[in-house]
Amino acid sequence: MSEIKQKSVEVFLDELASRQATPGGGSVAAVMGAQSAALTSMVCNLTIGKPKYAEVEEQIKALLQQSETLRIQLTDMIKADVNVFDKLMACYGMPKQTDEEKTIRSTQIQTVLKQATQVPLDCANACAEAISLSRQAAEMGNTGVISDAGVAVMAGYAALKSAALNVYINAGSIKDRQFAETKLAELEAILSDADVATEEIYQIVKEKL
Amino acid sequence: MSEIKQKSVEVFLDELASRQATPGGGSVAAVMGAQSAALTSMVCNLTIGKPKYAEVEEQIKALLQQSETLRIQLTDMIKADVNVFDKLMACYGMPKQTDEEKTIRSTQIQTVLKQATQVPLDCANACAEAISLSRQAAEMGNTGVISDAGVAVMAGYAALKSAALNVYINAGSIKDRQFAETKLAELEAILSDADVATEEIYQIVKEKL
Repeated sequence: MSEIKQKSVEVFLDELASRQATPGGGSVAAVMGAQSAALTSMVCNLTIGKPKYAEVEEQIKALLQQSETLRIQLTDMIKADVNVFDKLMACYGMPKQTDEEKTIRSTQIQTVLKQATQVPLDCANACAEAISLSRQAAEMGNTGVISDAGVAVMAGYAALKSAALNVYINAGSIKDRQFAETKLAELEAILSDADVATEEIYQIVKEKL
Repeated sequence: MSEIKQKSVEVFLDELASRQATPGGGSVAAVMGAQSAALTSMVCNLTIGKPKYAEVEEQIKALLQQSETLRIQLTDMIKADVNVFDKLMACYGMPKQTDEEKTIRSTQIQTVLKQATQVPLDCANACAEAISLSRQAAEMGNTGVISDAGVAVMAGYAALKSAALNVYINAGSIKDRQFAETKLAELEAILSDADVATEEIYQIVKEKL
């Protein structure tokens, strides 16, 4: 089966809407995060080389390098979400007749639940970075395409809040509460200033339109 | 050239990041809106037929019909944004040597600016509907996939705020201020309760996880 990123936008949307369990919200979070990074890259690409922005050229080039690295990471996360979900579903499908089978199944579920918590947490982290990069694009980028920095921050924000939901779900089922609480605390730290930062960046853009 | 929706997710992201002027934020707004509608459809498709949700089956079927209609509309808007942008750029490229040429060019720009305001305004309207449909999915849908309703509301919200930026830009350049102010007032009405609605729907989902 081909990877989601190789499917057309239209087919991706069709599969999303269908009764298939994947792709779902986790993949959408990664796609929105990748769109955010891509738009920051676009602003950079349309700023570099313009005499009016010569003063920030080096910073914009560095920003572009970061946003492109992040875009690749987030694009790969589209698949990571599906993979870990499928792995978890396979665990739930394991035999549970004997006590031994029950123990093996339960242990395996717990192991994969930790991975299924880490995957969206990594996505949330990447999305927070996407928000932060969009701020630089909004502050320094070509004002002729500054609205794209505004879309970048909104896409990154929606992606972050979406990834967070998947962390909550999976962390909630983990028996190792110390692990779960640590991950939830990491998530809260990532989320803590996201609302304010997003609003600030959106306003920076709106005032430059 | 093939339509954007027929391109792979990966190629779409590459083109987004590039120095091409389109696709840009306007297309991302439409894609995020379509993702929102698609996820509401997914929740519906995974609710219909489950005995536990028999009581809301008819409402969920009606919701699915609305979300699928909306998904098609928003998917078509990916192209609409590019088309009107290209049309506007073509106007700016019109000859402007003689007074007559200047008048023709200016009149043509003003005509297309009105279209370029209406296109993202229509998108914003559709995104507000996507948010509203995600609330029904969050309230009535299968709690096993309720996080997808949470991603649906965030995608719809980001899409709405993104489309709004393109309304602001184009309305700002319109000389017919009555037209522009009417469109901006329509936008403000659409935006007015979006923040509160989004937060409410997100919380409904979070509490059901």
